[in-house]
Amino acid sequence: MAGIRKRGRKDLLLIRLAEGASVAGVFTRNRFSAAPVQVCRSHLQGGRPIRAVLVNSGCANAGTGAQGLADALSACEEAARLLGCEASQVLPLSTGVIMEPLPVQAIVEALPQAAARLDPAGWLDAAESMMTTDTVPKAVSRRSQLDGAAVAVTGIAKGAGMIRPNMGTLLSFIATDAAVAPAVLEALTRRVADASFNRITVDGDTSTNDSFVVAATGRAAAAAAPIAGAGDPRLAPLESTIAEVAGELAMAIVRDGEGASKFIRIVVAQALSESEASQVAYAVAHSPLVKTAMFASDPNLGRILSAVGASGVGDLDSSRVQLYLNDVWVARDGARHPQYREEDGQRAMHASEILVRILLGRGSASASVWTCDLSHGYVSINADYRS
Amino acid sequence: MAGIRKRGRKDLLLIRLAEGASVAGVFTRNRFSAAPVQVCRSHLQGGRPIRAVLVNSGCANAGTGAQGLADALSACEEAARLLGCEASQVLPLSTGVIMEPLPVQAIVEALPQAAARLDPAGWLDAAESMMTTDTVPKAVSRRSQLDGAAVAVTGIAKGAGMIRPNMGTLLSFIATDAAVAPAVLEALTRRVADASFNRITVDGDTSTNDSFVVAATGRAAAAAAPIAGAGDPRLAPLESTIAEVAGELAMAIVRDGEGASKFIRIVVAQALSESEASQVAYAVAHSPLVKTAMFASDPNLGRILSAVGASGVGDLDSSRVQLYLNDVWVARDGARHPQYREEDGQRAMHASEILVRILLGRGSASASVWTCDLSHGYVSINADYRS
Repeated sequence: MAGIRKRGRKDLLLIRLAEGASVAGVFTRNRFSAAPVQVCRSHLQGGRPIRAVLVNSGCANAGTGAQGLADALSACEEAARLLGCEASQVLPLSTGVIMEPLPVQAIVEALPQAAARLDPAGWLDAAESMMTTDTVPKAVSRRSQLDGAAVAVTGIAKGAGMIRPNMGTLLSFIATDAAVAPAVLEALTRRVADASFNRITVDGDTSTNDSFVVAATGRAAAAAAPIAGAGDPRLAPLESTIAEVAGELAMAIVRDGEGASKFIRIVVAQALSESEASQVAYAVAHSPLVKTAMFASDPNLGRILSAVGASGVGDLDSSRVQLYLNDVWVARDGARHPQYREEDGQRAMHASEILVRILLGRGSASASVWTCDLSHGYVSINADYRS
Repeated sequence: MAGIRKRGRKDLLLIRLAEGASVAGVFTRNRFSAAPVQVCRSHLQGGRPIRAVLVNSGCANAGTGAQGLADALSACEEAARLLGCEASQVLPLSTGVIMEPLPVQAIVEALPQAAARLDPAGWLDAAESMMTTDTVPKAVSRRSQLDGAAVAVTGIAKGAGMIRPNMGTLLSFIATDAAVAPAVLEALTRRVADASFNRITVDGDTSTNDSFVVAATGRAAAAAAPIAGAGDPRLAPLESTIAEVAGELAMAIVRDGEGASKFIRIVVAQALSESEASQVAYAVAHSPLVKTAMFASDPNLGRILSAVGASGVGDLDSSRVQLYLNDVWVARDGARHPQYREEDGQRAMHASEILVRILLGRGSASASVWTCDLSHGYVSINADYRS
């Protein structure tokens, strides 16, 4: 424990990767990307095999300028010294308060203890070390088959607020003992992020530190021949397992969204393009009025139509829009369905999981977004985060 | 009182305009624009002189399809009958719950009483009739000079939530007794809206009903010769008075923002273009994390940098960004200013009016946005709006 966060709380995590592991990552598109994000990009591009991931919570090391970069590198150097590799083989991930200096001395002093604690089975402990406003650690493990033998895929993630990833999400790490060539793993990582972490939002705030790292260690018995190309028939089943783990972690982040009491899936269909569908889905997911209605289980569902209308689709014909809540047809052709009864909407709103389906009547593309409601809890947590 | 809203609450307002008045309006760009908005656009385009404005609160008549249009027209017809004009000379404005039918019968029954109440001095009463979640009526009056004689400019507005106007704002009406030709008034109305109502946001939700109507009645003594062209030297002083009234009303809406405890002005300068500056200012104004920190008076100001970085300016160089809170230089060249002391940030945050200044270091364009904080009050009001 480096004492970066509250005393007695785990805040430092060192993950050692098996020799020969392939590693790929996607990172935030926030232009104030944190120093560790910049170091990760540079170390992954450097081409030296990545041997370790170093995670701290409590301080994001973002908005920290040149000193922040130097601090992130110092932490990597100390981890490298302890593990017997080079600093450029360590990926640093940070999460916490922005625009405060990284307490690098405290990290350096706590690192030997973190290195001594290295435990191949310590995933839950690892997930716990990354928590900030998270209320539960997030770890998911699945088995897959490769050439008839078992391979494992295990992942951890943290995140509850400042969640609207635009590449990866605030700190997720997935490892498999399958063997995958680096170029194949990189493309896979992007596809998996797009279908999981890039589909969630809690509050629309894209973090400075979003990082999603996937490692393939090649340590499984079945992994003798690495998956070397996109045409390899073994890629699809492995990717689907990794996507399942990433999807579970992404959903766990939404369920643990700051103050969240509802899990809401928004599906927009009949759009002209996937990006149009996505734009409408995010507009609904980010509307504070929709989110507070969800919190209150109040079927004030005109707010959803208003959010659709304000989503920026300039030539949307509102008279072709259909709205469903779970199995309840709420709005037909842009107006309240004549058979819609408020008690049906009410029943749907009271569930802890809600499916909002919006048909635009323009085309055949669709997209979905997972989000949560906006409650007093969100305001309390964020009015009080640093204390 | 039509009994649309809570019993005993004023909810219907009829404004009669002097014969020969010029009238112009700007309306929401929400694609689910309300039936009354569609009727207003059509009546203004119809070219018949507008003689009355009919306002109801409690029901937005949006997301109501063809029936909504018929209902809005029925209400106009009844008002026209009472005032001795045609339905196409009445502008209907509605505000309230979306996707519920307009109680047109109740309005028709209450109209004779509203017509009997017509009072040239009844502006405050009028402002009160439009309120929904507003806690105070919003009315502003100013005098201006025209050819050496006095003209009056008086305006009313309503709005507290679902505020992120994109043309006008939810129900504002300004009248002057100056004489202004219709084409001149229309251009003036757009410029005034852009500099007032189009610069505010409470929650980023663009309403279905935003309407801003300006009338110039020509009844002032000095108004014998109408302002007939953009080159008329009398236009600028009158426009500046109208803009002042609109600006005051817009700020009153933000100060009365749902649950608001702080008035926040965000100025973004050194941008490449005004739209880029505006985009960054709105990103900061809409960030729930920035808004909750403002509520808590917590100088967790890295959240502002994060919102700037996530605002979508793809080639922003974060190392050229400066951040000021009132007179406090918080971030220099993208990182915390070495001389910044938390107690200075804390002091600025405790004020009820806060100026956030962001310099992008890219160009010379600037834009500003007025907004408020996000509090428990906002969640309570919107989790509970219909009850």
